Amino acid sequence: MVFREAEVPIEWEEHYVGDQIDPRTQSFLTWESLESVRKNRVGLKGPMATPIGKGHRSLNLTLRKELNLYANVRPCYSLPGYKTRYDDVNLITIRENTEGEYSGLEHQVVRGVVESLKIITRQASLRVAEYAFHYAKTHGRERVSAIHKANIMQKTDGLFLKCCREVAEKYPDIKYEEVVIDNCCMMLVKNPALFDVLVMPNLYGDIISDLCAGLIGGLGLTPSCNIGEGGIALAEAVHGSAPDIAGKNLANPTALLLSSVTMLRHLELHDKADRIQNAILSTIAEGKFRTADLGGASSTSDFTKAICDHL
Amino acid sequence: MVFREAEVPIEWEEHYVGDQIDPRTQSFLTWESLESVRKNRVGLKGPMATPIGKGHRSLNLTLRKELNLYANVRPCYSLPGYKTRYDDVNLITIRENTEGEYSGLEHQVVRGVVESLKIITRQASLRVAEYAFHYAKTHGRERVSAIHKANIMQKTDGLFLKCCREVAEKYPDIKYEEVVIDNCCMMLVKNPALFDVLVMPNLYGDIISDLCAGLIGGLGLTPSCNIGEGGIALAEAVHGSAPDIAGKNLANPTALLLSSVTMLRHLELHDKADRIQNAILSTIAEGKFRTADLGGASSTSDFTKAICDHL
Ligand SMILES: CC(C)[C@H](C(=O)O)[C@@H](O)C(=O)O
Ligand SMILES: CC(C)[C@H](C(=O)O)[C@@H](O)C(=O)O
Repeated sequence: MVFREAEVPIEWEEHYVGDQIDPRTQSFLTWESLESVRKNRVGLKGPMATPIGKGHRSLNLTLRKELNLYANVRPCYSLPGYKTRYDDVNLITIRENTEGEYSGLEHQVVRGVVESLKIITRQASLRVAEYAFHYAKTHGRERVSAIHKANIMQKTDGLFLKCCREVAEKYPDIKYEEVVIDNCCMMLVKNPALFDVLVMPNLYGDIISDLCAGLIGGLGLTPSCNIGEGGIALAEAVHGSAPDIAGKNLANPTALLLSSVTMLRHLELHDKADRIQNAILSTIAEGKFRTADLGGASSTSDFTKAICDHL
Repeated sequence: MVFREAEVPIEWEEHYVGDQIDPRTQSFLTWESLESVRKNRVGLKGPMATPIGKGHRSLNLTLRKELNLYANVRPCYSLPGYKTRYDDVNLITIRENTEGEYSGLEHQVVRGVVESLKIITRQASLRVAEYAFHYAKTHGRERVSAIHKANIMQKTDGLFLKCCREVAEKYPDIKYEEVVIDNCCMMLVKNPALFDVLVMPNLYGDIISDLCAGLIGGLGLTPSCNIGEGGIALAEAVHGSAPDIAGKNLANPTALLLSSVTMLRHLELHDKADRIQNAILSTIAEGKFRTADLGGASSTSDFTKAICDHL
């Protein structure tokens, strides 16, 4: 951790994801780890890989479900000093995180014909729309764009839009617009500065948040925070667990550190959040220490030390 | 038309989309227009707008369904002379065009809970995969990437991938890979040169083809061709019908002209196709005549005349 406990008033409880199924959760996630987040209501989580092809449910999906993490929030902004094709990205994607195309309901109708169910509910749509507008308002944002394909999925995405419109009415100071997903992606790559806060159903959020991360350099750089019922906030780095470089002191800690900043903001520790965020951004802007994924040769610890020096 | 009938051996049959429902098709599309494409098996179609909010089925969707236009093919390449953030795009998106999320099957389960069905069939998946590999082979392409979200939609997208794999086995000279849609979008905006031919279910194709168009400047510049059963090829400009500038001699004809080139290629008139494509690309590269959407002030006819002069 770059911040010392003395400075940020946090007591850490550490939990490891097991390497065996915990019978109480039917998952690698231990019952203690879930209880810890439920109790503390705030958490910071490293990347977790689900063993592939062994029939295990994705650990991330299990977490979302068990903790009812209904909104995935990803601030995405151009990082001065880390050059990509874009230097004017400054947006937030807010993704519904519990339903939609991720229902897990699929079956074979007859041989060679399979179907999957996309579920949209009024409750989950209102909840994430409410979060998006509240976020916009409390973070000095001007506009919320609801992303959809209601010209095709009139009932499902139509319901999602209807809920967004209802919530928009309660926030007359925040501009509201609706953008069809295909057009949204075209506009994002042409001119991402057109967007401010985006709110959308699960799969569109999955797609667009990664697209946006790509604009500023990739998942190694973008923070993420999951919001759950009862004020739970679970910050996480969304990049993979990169087993090829695990333990080699090569990983870029930026996404995890910036995610911890979103956690501090959730705790309304904005001063601390600002200080740490500035230290991270200054280190990147300076460009002296850069991990391999960003074309540099620094170790994780050198890069992290540089950040601490900026604090 | 930039090409004179004397040069390209085509006899045109012209059909207008009606402004009233044709009782024989239950749509604005006249029975004659559908019959004409069925009979000639080749067509070129301008943008069509479906009157909004009057309960009409989209004209484009009706065409796809009636003519069983199972593959939507969009070549997308950087245009020298028209600068965007990308100068190294050269890929083809091939979209399954008849099923998936576009089934139109949606219903309310209980108040506040709606669902929509995504349908994937072996038949349609094999058909579009076969088209993609055949396209790659006959167009000197090296690689086909199947885009999916089978980590979540294991049965539906899983079946799509299974079909792609089966077809891939028959084309040992074409490389085959599978890319998850969110990761694909991130890679596309970071480094589109990584991609060659992409094949995917309907909605992913809708999203990714627009994203790719955005990389090179937008839908005003990208050709599109729909392939149907029995060798039907219906080329089209996929941008909107832009009623605000209709009849004002301001529209950019590039997408329609490049689409007509794909039509000529389908007819194996490659010489003619090359000549016309070169004339279009040279005119754009020269940059003297440029329509308003590309930041210029040329009229449609001046731009088109410049293309004819290059012929
Ligand atoms: C790993 C995968 C299941 C997950 C998702 O699709 O949600 C990932 O892409 C994400 O965005 O967190
Ligand atoms: C207009 C709309 C129905 C259509 C689609 O979603 O397929 C369009 O976006 C396209 O790509 O042709």
